[in-house]
Amino acid sequence: MNSRIPAVTALIEALGCDRVLSGDELRDRPCRDWSEEPSAQPLALLLPRSPQEVAAALRLCHAHRAPVVVQGGLTGLAGGANPAPGEIALSLARLNAIENFDAVGGTVIAQAGVTLQQLQEHVGTEGWSFPLDLGARGSCQLGGNAATNAGGNRVLRHGMMRQNVLGLEVAMADGTLVDMLDRVIKNNAGFDLKQLFIGSEGTLGVITRLSLKLEPARRASSTALCGVRSFQAATRLLRLAKEMLPGLTAYELMWDGFFRASAQAQGRRPPLDGHFPLYVLLESQGHAAPVCDSAMQEFLANALEDGCVEDAVIASSIEQAAGLWGFREGIAELLAHLKPCVAFDVSVALVKMNDLVEELRSDLEARFPHIAHLFFGHLGDGNLHLISGPYAAPEDREAVEKLVYARVGRYRGSISAEHGVGRLKKAYLPMSRNAGELALMARLRNCLDPQGILNRGRVLEA
Amino acid sequence: MNSRIPAVTALIEALGCDRVLSGDELRDRPCRDWSEEPSAQPLALLLPRSPQEVAAALRLCHAHRAPVVVQGGLTGLAGGANPAPGEIALSLARLNAIENFDAVGGTVIAQAGVTLQQLQEHVGTEGWSFPLDLGARGSCQLGGNAATNAGGNRVLRHGMMRQNVLGLEVAMADGTLVDMLDRVIKNNAGFDLKQLFIGSEGTLGVITRLSLKLEPARRASSTALCGVRSFQAATRLLRLAKEMLPGLTAYELMWDGFFRASAQAQGRRPPLDGHFPLYVLLESQGHAAPVCDSAMQEFLANALEDGCVEDAVIASSIEQAAGLWGFREGIAELLAHLKPCVAFDVSVALVKMNDLVEELRSDLEARFPHIAHLFFGHLGDGNLHLISGPYAAPEDREAVEKLVYARVGRYRGSISAEHGVGRLKKAYLPMSRNAGELALMARLRNCLDPQGILNRGRVLEA
Repeated sequence: MNSRIPAVTALIEALGCDRVLSGDELRDRPCRDWSEEPSAQPLALLLPRSPQEVAAALRLCHAHRAPVVVQGGLTGLAGGANPAPGEIALSLARLNAIENFDAVGGTVIAQAGVTLQQLQEHVGTEGWSFPLDLGARGSCQLGGNAATNAGGNRVLRHGMMRQNVLGLEVAMADGTLVDMLDRVIKNNAGFDLKQLFIGSEGTLGVITRLSLKLEPARRASSTALCGVRSFQAATRLLRLAKEMLPGLTAYELMWDGFFRASAQAQGRRPPLDGHFPLYVLLESQGHAAPVCDSAMQEFLANALEDGCVEDAVIASSIEQAAGLWGFREGIAELLAHLKPCVAFDVSVALVKMNDLVEELRSDLEARFPHIAHLFFGHLGDGNLHLISGPYAAPEDREAVEKLVYARVGRYRGSISAEHGVGRLKKAYLPMSRNAGELALMARLRNCLDPQGILNRGRVLEA
Repeated sequence: MNSRIPAVTALIEALGCDRVLSGDELRDRPCRDWSEEPSAQPLALLLPRSPQEVAAALRLCHAHRAPVVVQGGLTGLAGGANPAPGEIALSLARLNAIENFDAVGGTVIAQAGVTLQQLQEHVGTEGWSFPLDLGARGSCQLGGNAATNAGGNRVLRHGMMRQNVLGLEVAMADGTLVDMLDRVIKNNAGFDLKQLFIGSEGTLGVITRLSLKLEPARRASSTALCGVRSFQAATRLLRLAKEMLPGLTAYELMWDGFFRASAQAQGRRPPLDGHFPLYVLLESQGHAAPVCDSAMQEFLANALEDGCVEDAVIASSIEQAAGLWGFREGIAELLAHLKPCVAFDVSVALVKMNDLVEELRSDLEARFPHIAHLFFGHLGDGNLHLISGPYAAPEDREAVEKLVYARVGRYRGSISAEHGVGRLKKAYLPMSRNAGELALMARLRNCLDPQGILNRGRVLEA
C-alpha cells in the first residue's frame, strides 16, 4: 500500500487538497454501491471539478501506475464502483453542470455527474423529455448511465442509454481527453468511437461529458392489466400490441406466482376477478388522453376477440395507473419478505423464454422446494427477472446462481441484460461470452489501457 | 505486383479454383461500386461459400501480407469497395443463405451476402418487416449495410442499421472467426463488441453473418405534403409531428429550388396552389388506414391552426402517396439535367441547419452564379443533401467540395451522414473529426489489423 502514497501526494500537489480527500476525511463519505459486494476504503477520493481535472488526475495515476476506481452515483448493482484495496476512487459528482440545451433540435450537453432526475427536470421545463428512466433516477448519474448502458422502464420504445447518446467526451487512461461530442443524429464520418465507451463500465475510459438526444414530452398515457392463459398467448399479444399501439412503451410480463406474492406483500386485491397463469402490464403513450385511451380500447377488444387475452382492465386515472404499476414495481416490499435472496437480470430470445422458465422452475423447486421462485420481466425486451429466496446459507445462493447462469448460457442468453458485470458477475461472464469474444475484449482493454489502471478487475480479469 | 502472386497461388491451393478467379476470368466481372472513384482490376476475386472459407482466405492473405478489399453489393458511393492496384477482392456474394428466422420473437440470422430485398421478402411472408430500406435494396447486401451503417428512408422511426443489428459474426484480419451472434435485445454482459464493426467500413474485420431484429409489418400509412413559410416553422412542425404522430416514419424537407427543379425534371404539376419557401413531405405508419388518416388529419388541422403550415394535401390513395414521394425521390431525373455535378450528404445540428444552408447558398451563388444549388434532406435526422451542378471543370467540383465541407466542419457537422468515407471523403475527414478522434481510430485499426491488410487506405490513411 505504501507504494501508492507517492501518487496521492502528487495528486494533492497537482489538484489541491480540496480535490483530493484521504485518511480521516473519508470516514463518513459513502464510497460503495447498492450491491453487497466487498468494498475497501480507497487510498484517496478524487473530486475533480472539470473534465480537464479528471484528465490531469488520470495522467498522474497513469504515471504512477496507480489503479483507479471510477464512481458515479453509486447506484450500481454489480459491485463495479466498490474500491478494492489500494485503489484511488475518482468521483464525477462535482461535474454536475448542464452546459447546453438546444430546445429547437432537442439535444443537450451535460457533464457526467449530472443526475438523471436533474436532467429530466431541466429539459422538462421546455416540454422535452430524456426517455431513459430508472428507479435510481435521483442518485444515478448520466456518466454512469452511459458507462453501464442503463435500461429501465421505456426501453421497448426508446432503447437503452446507448440509443440516446449522440456523443461523449472521454478521459483516456493516460490522461488524454478526447472530444467526441457530436450533436447530430446521423454520422458515418469514420468509426463511431463513442460506442466503445458505452457499456464498458469504465474499463476503457472515463466519460466526462455527454451529448444526448431528447424526445418531445408525452402528455398522455394509457395503462392496462391483462390476464393471459399461456406464454404463447403473451407473445401473440406482444406482437399485436406492437402492431396496433405505435406509442407502446412498456410490456411487462408477470408469472402468477410473482403477481400473487406482490399483491400479498402490499396487502392489495388484484383488480381482475379470477386467476390467470400470466399477467401483462401494458403502457402506451401519446399526446392526448382520448386518442391514447381509444387506441388501447380498440387494441384490447381485438386481443379479447383473438383469444390472446382472457380479461383486462384499463386504468381510468393516474392513480389507477400507478396502482397497476404497483404490482410490477412493488419489489421492495417483496424483497423484505424474501431476504436473503438471489435476484437475476438475464435475457434470452423470446422463442426460448418459456422453456427456460419452465426448466428453471422445475430445477429450483426440486432442489429448494420451500423457497419462493418468482418470475417476471420486460417481455418486450426479452429481459427476464427472477427473485429466489430466502436462503440462509450463502452456499445455497451460490448454487442457485450457478444453476441459473448455466441454463441461461445453454440457451445462448445473457447473464446480464441491464445491470452489467462489475465484479459480481465476472466469474459467470464465460457462460454468456465465448473465448473469441473474451479475447477480443481483453485485446481492446489492453489497447486502450495497457497498464490496466482503470476499474481493474471489473468485467474482465485484471 | 509479382510479390502478390504467391498469395494467389496459395489461395487457389487452399480454396480451390472455383473460389478464386484471376486473370481473364475477371474480365467481365463487375468489380467497382456506384461512385466515380478510381478502380483497378484486382489480382484475384475470392468467392468463398461459407464464413469458414472467408476466415481461411484471410488467414492466408494475412500470412502473405496481401492487402484485401472487401466487396458486398457494390452499391457504395464512397469508392470503398473499388480495388486499388495489387489488392485481392473478397466478395461475400455467395454467402447468401437466410439461416434462421424466428417468427415468434421477430429475429433472423442471415449470411452477409443476402441482399436487403431478399431479406425483406423472406420475413414479409410471416408479417414481419426489416425496417431498413434503401433505393439500392435489390443489390445491396446486409454485410455491407452493417459495415457502412446504412440509413435510408425510415431512420426517424427505426434508426440506422446499427439499431437493428442484434449480433454479428466477424472474420478478423488474421483469419480468426469471432461469433457474436446475440439474439437478445438487451445484453450488458461485457463490451458490446459488434458496435466496433458496424460503420467501420470493413477496416476492422469482415462481417460474415448477422443477427437482426424485425418489426411487425405495418399495414397502413398516411402521406402528406405541406407548404411551409420558414425554416423555423419547419422545425416547429417537426416537433409537433413527433408529439402527435407516434408512427411518424419520414419528415423530408425540400427547399423551393429543389422542389421546383424536381417537378420540372419530371414534367409534373405541384399538388399545392401557390409557391412556398419550403415543402415538407411527411409519412406516418400504422396498422389500419382509418386510424392513420385521422391522426394525420388531426395533426395537420393543429399545424394549420398553429401557423407552422400554410397549406397541405393528404394522399388519398397509394398512387397519390407515390406521387408525393416522387417529388422527393425523383433524383435520377434531376441528376440527368445537372451532370457532372457534386452531391453532398452531410449532417448538422438542427438549430444550425438554416444558417448553414443560407451561408452555403450565398457562397455558392456568388462563386458559381449560373449553376443550380439544390437543397433537401431528412430534416427529422438532421441530414442535409445538396446537389450542385453542372460543372464542366473537375477543379470547380473540387472547389465546391472544399467550400462545403469546410463550412460543415465549422458548424461541427458531419461530412458524411449516411454514405461513409471510403476513399472519396478520406481527405475531408479531418474537417469532421479532431486529432484525438483520428488518433483513436488509428489505434483501434492498428490493434485489430496490425498489418493493415483489410481495406487499406479506406476511411483512414494506410
